[in-house]
Amino acid sequence: MPGDTFDIRTTTRSELIDVTPLVRAAVRKSGVQNGIACVFCPHTTAGLTIQENSDPRVRTDLSEHLAKLVPHDGPYINADNNSDAHIKSSMVGASLTIVIEGGKPVLGTWQAVYFCEFDGPRNRLLKVMVVPG
Amino acid sequence: MPGDTFDIRTTTRSELIDVTPLVRAAVRKSGVQNGIACVFCPHTTAGLTIQENSDPRVRTDLSEHLAKLVPHDGPYINADNNSDAHIKSSMVGASLTIVIEGGKPVLGTWQAVYFCEFDGPRNRLLKVMVVPG
Amino acid sequence: MPGDTFDIRTTTRSELIDVTPLVRAAVRKSGVQNGIACVFCPHTTAGLTIQENSDPRVRTDLSEHLAKLVPHDGPYINADNNSDAHIKSSMVGASLTIVIEGGKPVLGTWQAVYFCEFDGPRNRLLKVMVVPG
Repeated sequence: MPGDTFDIRTTTRSELIDVTPLVRAAVRKSGVQNGIACVFCPHTTAGLTIQENSDPRVRTDLSEHLAKLVPHDGPYINADNNSDAHIKSSMVGASLTIVIEGGKPVLGTWQAVYFCEFDGPRNRLLKVMVVPG
Repeated sequence: MPGDTFDIRTTTRSELIDVTPLVRAAVRKSGVQNGIACVFCPHTTAGLTIQENSDPRVRTDLSEHLAKLVPHDGPYINADNNSDAHIKSSMVGASLTIVIEGGKPVLGTWQAVYFCEFDGPRNRLLKVMVVPG
Repeated sequence: MPGDTFDIRTTTRSELIDVTPLVRAAVRKSGVQNGIACVFCPHTTAGLTIQENSDPRVRTDLSEHLAKLVPHDGPYINADNNSDAHIKSSMVGASLTIVIEGGKPVLGTWQAVYFCEFDGPRNRLLKVMVVPG
């Protein structure tokens, strides 16, 4: 069975968007009880991470610290003014995998899956594929 | 078949714990000859990495350099005094996947799987799910 | 079915090598129509990332910025003079997973899979395992 593809509309240059409900929906639809879900970002100026779903200040600290480590204004040689977004994408990664048990992703109590926009606002895609164990 | 869940007790604020024997045990128990193992950390102030299993100074250098890039004392806006742990977690990642062949994970000679505690000491969990190829 | 193992010869200390054709070949050979591909680097001074396949300056910016964040000359305590390579390996990661649909990896238009050599030149291996959805 093909996986699921979700449309994501980002609204600022850099933001973390909670896509956990999309991952849960894809797992439910697959009918897989035990297995793994591959969550994939088909873009090179965005990525995926798992972070705390509770205090939004954790995400602010993450975004601001990444911006400190990888400043927007470089210096970089790529002329598109988005090398910081490419570098951040490689640092958090474009794919992650989550264990599925009892038909659900076994995320920890405080975990959510975030789509990391680093060069928005844009229309983005998210792919989820579930494989049985 | 459900995956395996392992209890891990960490003893300091920041440490790398070799969980390769747990991954090998889960793969063996699954009976899968060829496939992949998903190793998953259900926490947002810890993570997983693959690193050298031989010279412990490599892990010290890794831990100390991450602490230099992401200092414990910030400044951060999250008041829990552990934003560094959250940021490091997103940098190394909460999941990894390993190829299985001949009933074993095909880790390189020098590779071990490490649970990265960034905000211990705590009781932690590790999940492993094996899927056939 | 066992996965595929590819030999990679790197030619400089630090470089990004496009291994997308190898991943595509492994997916094709597997015959899997829908599933996921696990791409795995069995080395601790190298890694894997997905980045832009078009403007090579993006990869130069990535390599040079990683070298700025993780300088070759430390200071580090490991005496092998390659702690920077180990640290970069943990930052980009040794594994990634890609969704397969219609018998092909669903990489975005601008995405390619890169083997990240951080301590070459060396003879390296790349493993790819495909599992069905």
